[in-house]
Amino acid sequence: MQEKGLLIVLSGPSGVGKGTVRKEIFSQPDTSFEYSISMTTRSPREGEVDGVDYFFKTREDFEALIEQDKLLEYAEFVGNYYGTPVDYVKETLDQGKDVFLEIEVQGARQVREKFPDGLFIFLVPPSLSELKNRIVTRGTETEDVINNRMTVAKEEIEMMNLYDYVVENDQIERACDRIKAIVVAEHCRRERVEPRYIKMLEVD
Amino acid sequence: MQEKGLLIVLSGPSGVGKGTVRKEIFSQPDTSFEYSISMTTRSPREGEVDGVDYFFKTREDFEALIEQDKLLEYAEFVGNYYGTPVDYVKETLDQGKDVFLEIEVQGARQVREKFPDGLFIFLVPPSLSELKNRIVTRGTETEDVINNRMTVAKEEIEMMNLYDYVVENDQIERACDRIKAIVVAEHCRRERVEPRYIKMLEVD
Repeated sequence: MQEKGLLIVLSGPSGVGKGTVRKEIFSQPDTSFEYSISMTTRSPREGEVDGVDYFFKTREDFEALIEQDKLLEYAEFVGNYYGTPVDYVKETLDQGKDVFLEIEVQGARQVREKFPDGLFIFLVPPSLSELKNRIVTRGTETEDVINNRMTVAKEEIEMMNLYDYVVENDQIERACDRIKAIVVAEHCRRERVEPRYIKMLEVD
Repeated sequence: MQEKGLLIVLSGPSGVGKGTVRKEIFSQPDTSFEYSISMTTRSPREGEVDGVDYFFKTREDFEALIEQDKLLEYAEFVGNYYGTPVDYVKETLDQGKDVFLEIEVQGARQVREKFPDGLFIFLVPPSLSELKNRIVTRGTETEDVINNRMTVAKEEIEMMNLYDYVVENDQIERACDRIKAIVVAEHCRRERVEPRYIKMLEVD
């Protein structure tokens, strides 16, 4: 009987560098989880490969998959669909492998509903923790800039609420190390480990 | 205003190798937490240094500290007291540094009551996960040996209940890596991080 893998969800405000961090993690040889490739209806950019960067689909195909409930999450941005095929995720978890998703916050909310036991990591821009300094050196910025920054920060902090972990993207390597540490730690959490031992004793 | 450090408690069944793992962690240059030295009334063994391995105290001094409520936890084993001085722990946490305790399970239970927010890590012997194999190859061991092993395993699994994390001591280096990953991850937990950001917004 195979123990299920962990579903790891990396998300965060747009522009925070989720894609860069994800690419760095998967370029490291000791990364032991599987990347779930997203599906999109947008055109491939130069150098992007179907089945590597994205699964590129027509709008008709994508909408058919929505109809058939074949997407774990999806959203529309500037006229294009983006989503996560559910079958790959479920099959890989069933094989006992950890699956890594890098998705937008709207998508993460949908995944949380379907996989409440997933491991949800929120990547925050370093500007959020620089906020205090910015306010202290208020004289150097206009009132409008400060107010705008405060509004954005409030939104970002409110988004955090859904997540288990918050990782600051101050340096890509450090952010990657923290994410990998979180996955190692999560595999040691008593709630996850204990049932395995209890099951051992049940054997007769 | 200084954020408090984490109290990290490493414990586990006697003989599991807590001391060896702790020494390995503190021999590594990148370890960023402070070791809380225990106090004991037993005599120093060869090579042991007062204030390094233990604080060696007389029975009278130790009992006076118990009276004055100056011990975070203590227990008596084979006629000797062992305990953790509380002042060092509190002062170091107040300085924002993480404090690491390596103590017996009875002590860990006392610490949990006083520091429910601490990070409690249970080190398990690899024999626990080998249990299943042992049962499968039952023919090679007597019924008594198996029954005894089962009883011990049940006790060990029951002890786990108090802890946040379970780390298997299959290899010292691997156990150390997992413990350090747990500390990194715990610093990223949303419940710990979020208040810091919320506080930033309160500045006016």
